[in-house]
Amino acid sequence: MKGSLLEGIPSELPEEIFDTICSAERVKIERIVSRGHASPEGFWYDQERNEFVLVVRGSAGLRLENEDDIVVLKSGDYLNIGAHMKHRVEWTDPTCETIWLAVQY
Amino acid sequence: MKGSLLEGIPSELPEEIFDTICSAERVKIERIVSRGHASPEGFWYDQERNEFVLVVRGSAGLRLENEDDIVVLKSGDYLNIGAHMKHRVEWTDPTCETIWLAVQY
Repeated sequence: MKGSLLEGIPSELPEEIFDTICSAERVKIERIVSRGHASPEGFWYDQERNEFVLVVRGSAGLRLENEDDIVVLKSGDYLNIGAHMKHRVEWTDPTCETIWLAVQY
Repeated sequence: MKGSLLEGIPSELPEEIFDTICSAERVKIERIVSRGHASPEGFWYDQERNEFVLVVRGSAGLRLENEDDIVVLKSGDYLNIGAHMKHRVEWTDPTCETIWLAVQY
């Protein structure tokens, strides 16, 4: 039941890691670990549920459809993304892990 | 939509602070800020929903009913508390803010 978002991270991260922490009807809580990853060119997330994302460590830039500026998230910053609000990860810090907590609801 | 869990914390904390970040049917996401606070003596939380708690900064000790040992949570540690699992906060760090993210679901 107890765990740490900061542990169990492999030294090599060829792909982002998605770990489900809790899953229940209508809610999923997961940890995401990135290092220098970005969404593939032209790819947009378009999700059926709302998603709350928190950057616990590291930093990232998110692009939201129809907004000019990239939303920069650093440690402690969160963003609440409404269902079907198209978004993509433009960049994550290449020098360290970016650890996210994501709650889909 | 963007916010920071680390900002907007008053210098004095006579009581714990509970800020709702997102609320939807069946889900509530909130920030809790403590400094040296504990649950009142003899008080137990007994909640209808599951609760995921993450310590973002600081540290805390939680007691779960029918468990001998206090669960110590430090930065990055989380605990998933099932509905109606009685629990209480035995202590939080008296020297700095303890910042929690709590998801009731």
